[in-house]
Parts: sequence; C-alpha cells; structure tokens
Amino acid sequence: MADAEIIAVGSELLTPQKVDTNSLYLTDQLNALGVEVVRKAVVGDDRQRLVETIHGAMERSQVVVLTGGLGPTEDDLTRESVASALGRELVFSQDICDQIAERFRRFGRVMAEINKRQAYIVSGAEVLNNPRGTAPGQWISNNGLTVILLPGPPSELKAMFERECLPRFEKLLPPQAIRSRFYRSVGLTESDLDELIAPVYTKYTNPATTILAASGEIHIHLRARCAEAAQAEKLLEEVASQIEPLLGDRIYSRNGDSLEAVVGRLLRERKAHLSVAESATGGLLGGRITSVAGSSDYFVGGFLTYTDQMKTELLGVPADLIQEHSAVSEAVAKAMAQGAQKRTHSDYALSITGYAGPDGAQVGVVFIGLATPDGVQARRVQLPGDRERIRMFSTNTALDLLRRTLLGIG
Amino acid sequence: MADAEIIAVGSELLTPQKVDTNSLYLTDQLNALGVEVVRKAVVGDDRQRLVETIHGAMERSQVVVLTGGLGPTEDDLTRESVASALGRELVFSQDICDQIAERFRRFGRVMAEINKRQAYIVSGAEVLNNPRGTAPGQWISNNGLTVILLPGPPSELKAMFERECLPRFEKLLPPQAIRSRFYRSVGLTESDLDELIAPVYTKYTNPATTILAASGEIHIHLRARCAEAAQAEKLLEEVASQIEPLLGDRIYSRNGDSLEAVVGRLLRERKAHLSVAESATGGLLGGRITSVAGSSDYFVGGFLTYTDQMKTELLGVPADLIQEHSAVSEAVAKAMAQGAQKRTHSDYALSITGYAGPDGAQVGVVFIGLATPDGVQARRVQLPGDRERIRMFSTNTALDLLRRTLLGIG
Repeated sequence: MADAEIIAVGSELLTPQKVDTNSLYLTDQLNALGVEVVRKAVVGDDRQRLVETIHGAMERSQVVVLTGGLGPTEDDLTRESVASALGRELVFSQDICDQIAERFRRFGRVMAEINKRQAYIVSGAEVLNNPRGTAPGQWISNNGLTVILLPGPPSELKAMFERECLPRFEKLLPPQAIRSRFYRSVGLTESDLDELIAPVYTKYTNPATTILAASGEIHIHLRARCAEAAQAEKLLEEVASQIEPLLGDRIYSRNGDSLEAVVGRLLRERKAHLSVAESATGGLLGGRITSVAGSSDYFVGGFLTYTDQMKTELLGVPADLIQEHSAVSEAVAKAMAQGAQKRTHSDYALSITGYAGPDGAQVGVVFIGLATPDGVQARRVQLPGDRERIRMFSTNTALDLLRRTLLGIG
Repeated sequence: MADAEIIAVGSELLTPQKVDTNSLYLTDQLNALGVEVVRKAVVGDDRQRLVETIHGAMERSQVVVLTGGLGPTEDDLTRESVASALGRELVFSQDICDQIAERFRRFGRVMAEINKRQAYIVSGAEVLNNPRGTAPGQWISNNGLTVILLPGPPSELKAMFERECLPRFEKLLPPQAIRSRFYRSVGLTESDLDELIAPVYTKYTNPATTILAASGEIHIHLRARCAEAAQAEKLLEEVASQIEPLLGDRIYSRNGDSLEAVVGRLLRERKAHLSVAESATGGLLGGRITSVAGSSDYFVGGFLTYTDQMKTELLGVPADLIQEHSAVSEAVAKAMAQGAQKRTHSDYALSITGYAGPDGAQVGVVFIGLATPDGVQARRVQLPGDRERIRMFSTNTALDLLRRTLLGIG
C-alpha cells in the first residue's frame, strides 16, 4: 500500500481564520484508491520552508500532493520549490502559455504578462489540464515517487483530480479494497471502553482501529484494506464480531447515525410520540431532537421550566414536592416528565433537572426523568466538566435512557 | 519575533471527516503574543513519524506546540515521542497519578489502570494543570526552544492555554504591547460589511483587521502591536473611531460577548423577564439563552410547540387562526409570543415559527414574534443555508430583534 503526504501551500492557511479543507477531499479520494494519507502539512509562501517540507515528504512517502501556490504572483512558489527539491529545471511551455492566453481571450480579456509564470513546468512533468482556471497542474513520476501539483481553489482542484489524476492513479496502483465500520457509543468513558476492547483490536493492524471521544460519546472506526473486497470484508467481520459482544447495547449506532436520529427512528417504528420538560438544559434536548429532519413525525413539543414557579404552573409539579425534595431531585424529575406527558398527550416524556454550574456545591448533579405508557422512572447522574459539557452530557444521558427503554434493555 | 510550528496528533485527523481546528485558536493566541505560526502539521498515531516531525520542527522553530495524543490508550504517543525527540526520559509522577485518581473519585468512579499512562511526564517538564480533563499538559524549555504538549479536546486545550500557557509566554517573550478590539455584529453579510469598512481598514497595516463570518454573525478583530502600550492604544482608537460610526447599532458587542449574553445583560438591567415559544427551532433559542451562567435571573421558561395542536393547547393560539394563515405566518408568530408571555407572566416573549427544511417550497421562511409590555410585533425573514443554518440564524434574528427593542433602536 502506498503512503501519501499532502502539503497545502499558502500563508493565508496559517491565519486564525483559514483551514485547509482540500486535504479532506483528497484524503477521501486517496483512501478510496487504497492510498493512506500519513501526514499533512501547511506551509506559507516561503521558498526555503517549502523546499524543506517537500524534500522531507519525498524522502518518506511514495505520493506527495501539493495544493495551491500555482497562481501568477511572486508569492506563488510551488512550481519552483518542487523543481528545486527534485533537482530539476523549470522549463517554459509555449503551448501552455498559448492556452492561458486563449482562456483570457475567451472571457474578453488580455493575458497579463505576469500570467506567463504559470506556463513554467518542472522538467519532465506531465501537464494536468485545468478546465476551470488558468493554473495547469503537474504530475511528476520519479523512480517510484509521484509528485502532484494541484491548484488551490477547491472547484479547480476537484475537477482536475477527477479528470486528470484518477485515471493516472488507476494505472499506477495495485487494485485494493477498503471496508470500514463506524460505531458510536454512550455511557462509557474512553478509557473504560478502551480497556474493554483493546485485547481484541491490538491483535490486529488490519483492520486499523481508531477510538475517539466527542461531545460525551465515543466513536470507534474500523478500517480494513486488502487486495480483494471479500478479504477486507472478512477481516472486518472477524474483528467486529469480537468487539460488538463486548460493547453490546452500549453501541447505539453501527453506521454513524447520531443518538437523536437513532431514538427518532425507534419512536417512528413504534408510532410513538415524545415530549420534553427541560430545566437545566433550557431547550438543548428539544433542539437536538428537532435537528433531525422529519422529527415532527414523533416529537410534539415540550416545556422549558427554568424556575420553580414554571415547573408548578406549566407542568403541575406540586409546589410542596419541590419544597420538600428541591427542584433537583428524583421526585421532581419524575413529576416533570409526568406533567409533560399528560399535558402533551405524548406516549413518552423526558425531563432534565440539574445543577449545570458554574457555581454551587452540587454542580454536575443531574436527574433525568422518563415517563412511559407503563409508568415513570428517574436516574441520577454526576456529570463532569463545565456548564457547557454538563448540559450536553445531560442530553446524551436522557436520549440514551429513552433508547434503552424503547429497546427494552433497561 | 519568534516562529512557532503546530503539530496536531491523531489518526482521526487524517480521515476525510476531521479537520484540525485547534490550530486556528492557537494561531490566534500566538499571533496576539507576537509569535508567528510558520508551519502546521497533522500526524497520525505512529511513533516514528511523530518523532521525525517533532524533530524537524524543533530544528527550525523556537516554539513547538503539540495538540492531542495525551489520552490514556496505547495509541496516545505524544508524551513518549517528545521525550524521544528531545533525548529525555519519561518519568512517572505519583502526584499527577493521585490527581487523576481523585478526579475519578469525585465523579464516583474508580480510575482505570490504563490512566496511569497519563501520569508520565517528560523529564524536566513543567506540568500544566487540566481543570477540564484527566490529561495534564506539559511545558518544556530547552536552550531557547519551548515545546508545549496540550490535550486535543478543544475545551480542555483552550482552558489550559489561557490559564497555564499565557502567563508563561508573557514571561518568556520580549515585551510588546498588543491592544485589540473584538466587535460582533449581526444583520449584515460578510461582503456588505466589508464594503462598508474596507475604505478605512485597508489604509492601515497596524492595527491588523480580520473579518470572520461565524454562525450567521460577523466578527471583526482589530489588533495593534507596538513597543509601547500607549502607542498601540492610540493606533487602535484611530481606526476604531472611524469604523464604529459606519456600523452603528449593527455592532452588538465590543468585547466579544455573545448575543445571548448581551441580551441577558439588557434584561437584567431592566429587571425584566423573558420567555420563549419555539416551533422550528425546537428549543435552540432557549438553549442559547440558558447557556449564559446566571440566566435564571431573567429567563423563566417557555414552550416547544412543534405541532399545530401544541400551539393551540399550550399557547392558546386559536386553531382557526392557524387554519387561516398557516402555522408559519405573522399572525401565528404574534399569537405564539403573546401566549408565552401570558402563560409565563413574563415581560417579554420571543417566538419562532418557520420552515427549516430540508424539503418544501418555502424553506428558509421564518417569522419571529416579540411580545413586549407595550404590544406585539412580528418580523418575516428569508434565511439562507441548510436546516442547521436556518435554525441557528433564526435564533440570531430573534435575539437581535429583542436587543434592538430593548435598546429602543427599532
């Protein structure tokens, strides 16, 4: 399998505002070809740094893709830097110059003298046509090393990659198949989850396993690569069939779907309706549920009851219950859920009441209530982090409680 | 001025889905300190590649910042790779181990054996506390070279940089006065805003002006750098005093405060209370309002009325009004706001009803209602983008309508 490095060129990509997104597209394309991207770099318009970076990449990897720096101005240094790193000359191409001039003419303009810079190619390079702009790309083969120069504007880059690079890669690379699986899980920390499944995945380098914590949940990626699709599928299944039983119902999604989408599907399948009653989260739970297109099939609405008075007036939580147990309690969480269920005539109702902080002795204590056609339950959790995380984790906990209840896995 | 390189560590950052955004925050912070970011790299969880990359960065630049790879699992290789690149040992710190264990205890859990990996530090490193997670950071000084290890999760990284790194940088770097201003604005597109103020800011390279679109609003940063604070302040004032009149009341914040924080402050000053009635946004508006600590001073609660029936039952919107005008109409937006105001006894009530998509002829049409002590109004907007953006922009429009009304600027 070939390794690739991607080098994005341009000082604007070193500002706090700009992120290199071309490399995401290129990674997707390269992975599909069986080429792994092992390193990415962003370098400004600085000749020496650029030559160094290209040089390092050429020493380590078989494919080096450069994006940007092919414009007509003085700070467009990719052409000359690649030539320098390869120890080759830059040569002027009258053909390319004529094509650029023709492009200008077509748009009723005259080519500026400066655009002639774009007609220089690295000696021995194949020219990659640019149907969407003036800068041609270049493809250089050098003893098993492939160096590719692509323009920075995403639309130019994509068109050029698809029309000019894909056919060349297909000739160059051995056929390879990639099969992947993407699990999402809530209710375990990253380290607990890793401890559970590491004995399995550390035995394999293929498929490769990646574990990642994100917004209070854990993502697990498995990716198998083989010459044959059937073989990749078999390897993937071999590892997946060991990991899945270890995680069991803690896996809520096997295809990358979000928790709110999974819960929505379960409700829709059951033709059931849901409402919410939110205190600490103030609407975040409803906001997540309704982020799914089509959520009106199962979500009817709910109540934001930020004050005790609202809990009583809007949800019918008895004032003396709040007095006795405090607003953050199992009793009040249950009463909130029952109130929402009753007043919206929904089958299910989730409630959240807790201390999101930042101040107070009990920050992170949250109660989740769930009213169902069969009764009501509540769960106490102690959540880590700051106000934002406590609120986000609260919605995870609530959605997962509903998921488990709908699936009958308690 | 010192040069910095940023190395983001993690195989997930080499997938087509994930982009390194921590480096944007770090670039902003480092630039403000007068440190230029000259190269960025992304490396997977591969020891040899990581050591090579760190080595190269240390040879070229005075500051090397690594993000990620400080977790407890086998593929978290930053600690050992930095030690190896520096030719130092990793040493176990019982202190850090105790702190991690204590953190687990606080959340009612037992530390997994695997977390002990996080208690190893590069010999001679200063430990950077992590108030938001288990992985401590590290700060290593080595003959004019500074190597910094920061955790990958953005909230942990930011908190650590601000509390632990900024004070250390201020001691390290030559005194330079930087004065900045951070305006936030809603209601103008980026290009319209740029057209308004470009004639001013393009005349100056110091202060530097940055314009950035984010979540439907525009951020404007001015940053002046001088040897003397008074001089930086004077330059900043010279540009700010020309820009501010051009934008007028479209600037809602001069210190970076969010729109929900600004609206909250206005309500608190007036001892006024707010409620909401949300349809298309399903809780996002309440979620934003309550993201501000202390919002219980002015936010009482509200209603999520996703169906017509809920609008009628929970808010008292007449069914025939919905029938006549449709649920997405000026009349219904007004009735929703009035219903929320009446049923929560709040001084002000905001409502949102609209088509968030993805399907339908009128996607992006949204009505915002606002009930005040003096009456009720509604505003129709046509918002661009997908479901997520339409919902986010809707909450911006609602909060800005309330802001302008509270300020009497219509």
